[in-house]
Amino acid sequence: MLVNQTFLRAPGPTPIPQQVSHAMNEPMIGHRSSSFAQLFADTSERLKPIFGTQQPIFIVTASGTGGLEVAVDNVTGAGDEVLVVVAGAFGDRFAAICEKHDLVTHRLNVAWGEAVCPNELKQALQSYPHVKAVLLTFNETSTGVIQPIQQLTAVVREHTDALTLVDGVSCIGGVAAKMDEWDIDILVTGSQKAMMLPPGLALISASKRAWAIIEKTKASSFYFDLKAYYKQWENAMTPYTPAVSLIKGLQAVCEMMEEETLDQVFKRHELMKEMTRAAMKALHLPLLTNDEVASPTVTAVKAVEGLNVDTFRSHVNKQYGLTLAGGQKQLKGKIFRIGHMGYCSPVDILTTVSIIEMGLLDCGLTIQLGAGVKAAQEVYRNDISNTCK
Amino acid sequence: MLVNQTFLRAPGPTPIPQQVSHAMNEPMIGHRSSSFAQLFADTSERLKPIFGTQQPIFIVTASGTGGLEVAVDNVTGAGDEVLVVVAGAFGDRFAAICEKHDLVTHRLNVAWGEAVCPNELKQALQSYPHVKAVLLTFNETSTGVIQPIQQLTAVVREHTDALTLVDGVSCIGGVAAKMDEWDIDILVTGSQKAMMLPPGLALISASKRAWAIIEKTKASSFYFDLKAYYKQWENAMTPYTPAVSLIKGLQAVCEMMEEETLDQVFKRHELMKEMTRAAMKALHLPLLTNDEVASPTVTAVKAVEGLNVDTFRSHVNKQYGLTLAGGQKQLKGKIFRIGHMGYCSPVDILTTVSIIEMGLLDCGLTIQLGAGVKAAQEVYRNDISNTCK
Repeated sequence: MLVNQTFLRAPGPTPIPQQVSHAMNEPMIGHRSSSFAQLFADTSERLKPIFGTQQPIFIVTASGTGGLEVAVDNVTGAGDEVLVVVAGAFGDRFAAICEKHDLVTHRLNVAWGEAVCPNELKQALQSYPHVKAVLLTFNETSTGVIQPIQQLTAVVREHTDALTLVDGVSCIGGVAAKMDEWDIDILVTGSQKAMMLPPGLALISASKRAWAIIEKTKASSFYFDLKAYYKQWENAMTPYTPAVSLIKGLQAVCEMMEEETLDQVFKRHELMKEMTRAAMKALHLPLLTNDEVASPTVTAVKAVEGLNVDTFRSHVNKQYGLTLAGGQKQLKGKIFRIGHMGYCSPVDILTTVSIIEMGLLDCGLTIQLGAGVKAAQEVYRNDISNTCK
Repeated sequence: MLVNQTFLRAPGPTPIPQQVSHAMNEPMIGHRSSSFAQLFADTSERLKPIFGTQQPIFIVTASGTGGLEVAVDNVTGAGDEVLVVVAGAFGDRFAAICEKHDLVTHRLNVAWGEAVCPNELKQALQSYPHVKAVLLTFNETSTGVIQPIQQLTAVVREHTDALTLVDGVSCIGGVAAKMDEWDIDILVTGSQKAMMLPPGLALISASKRAWAIIEKTKASSFYFDLKAYYKQWENAMTPYTPAVSLIKGLQAVCEMMEEETLDQVFKRHELMKEMTRAAMKALHLPLLTNDEVASPTVTAVKAVEGLNVDTFRSHVNKQYGLTLAGGQKQLKGKIFRIGHMGYCSPVDILTTVSIIEMGLLDCGLTIQLGAGVKAAQEVYRNDISNTCK
């Protein structure tokens, strides 16, 4: 690398905006102080439109995976039946959590890179009519597929009384979520993806229907028992010492999103997706997913003949400071992934594409420098209808 | 307040050193990168002398309470008998975690403000010879008592095969811990106390004896299963997205402690305790604990006639920016607590005492301004044998 400049385009963690860093650096405050209570109440309230809910949002000090376990542990008990849609590594992890809790776990396996079709889900529900919960991955980080959550929850509601537990870790804050309108029962996200923060927080909300179950369920975990969080939420506190600096940062994130407007945040993510996909197509790189199901936050690009994707990733990292992600589990060595979420702009996509082009050429692929950038620029200019007057 | 300056003397979270803030603000890195692996391996290694162990140290994204649950969940199963020494609010919480896990939980209750006597523990072990684990609070934050851990673990080892699980949340990094030498089986701490970081990390280490049990135990939690942490620790990684920025900060904390030397860090905490206690005695304020069991990280001061401790705390906070802690549970309204741990110096104690003096006078107590400061100064000067030559 010529200068020590880095471009973090993994699908989380993501770069941190300077004003968020500043907020996290404010002098530490006690978590039983009125200052903290104000911070917590304000931040929790401002998260509601991001989740699309009027329900309380709880903040748990944990990775996203911890948040997913909160969802499972608070509404099920050993022996309960659940249905998990598994369309990638994170659906697989959601199912593994259920298995760890000794649930009778039915997996609806979907090809990695595809979305589940509502009809398939309907059939699975007919096969397993007694499931207590249906677990869905809103945005499958490992493949770059966004699932049709609204349609899926509608199918669940039509055919069963099961709760819907939704892993929104890699998209909430980057795509519109309407938890209440779409009848999602538990929605979980993490801090380090479209929420523009360092990792360390899980954010969780539960519907009234879910709460009726939570109140009757004995959570197996002490730390993850949502009832304790609810009790302290009423005092604008958390039951255990919260990650105060991250919550300060979260408040700053909410301010930034409000300033940009949520609608514009979501349009920006859609635009970055379109730019990324147009660039990869112009470079004749095959995409793992179809346009219809492509994630606004992460794009998976397939290896082509002559390209070792992991060598390529390592090269662009060392030479140009660009971090891309590789494939996970069955996709290891078969794809690379570009994160375009959170604190990421259309211009950042141009930068990313230009480095990818140089890297591909460095690695021996025959590509036309600038072709991907041009395609992305065209999408960008078309979107903003920019004419200099 | 005349200026916006704050003095956070709660027993956690504590002020954050500027160089630690700087480290946490470095550009974000991916948690599957070689940069992260280097950071993790280096930091985990540097924590060993702080724990007094040669065993691996695991970093879990959670509050200290989450870390305590890790300890319980990985070595016990429903129906197992355990003995918990309860000498304050955190011993009580440790017991509550056991009860949540359906363990047969025997409580050895000790008066709040006192240490458990090794002989009492011996008798309890004779009454419950089949306990699988003995749970001890190294430093009881709610009372300011440090327990004689070395003697207690010796008693456990002499009379049973039980594992010792030690909550070191509010003292590790501020007092010497010799996990290996003292035969502690699982030692847990958090980031936000003597470790000088914001809250968000739990640090955990387990003895070989504990590992033999962990390997045979099915943890009930997915997120807290130590076997997954061990597996990834071998790759210098964590199983789930770690709180990267806090771990960057933790590395800086280790550097600061090494620079000061651990021996000096522990002496500084001892000195701050002596100064605080001398000051309170000079002001005729009764201390909750005897000198012999007084914690080097937190001091509890009893209410005296004419002083509403919570009004007093609120006043010094509003008027002078000083944060003190109150009493918890049965000690609510009966004590206030001064935290003197982590990024705190003898001079900070002089500041704290001087504000406390003014606050007491403001609240109508008859005290002699400067008397507490003088007593603390004398302890400080005596300690450093400072003569200007």
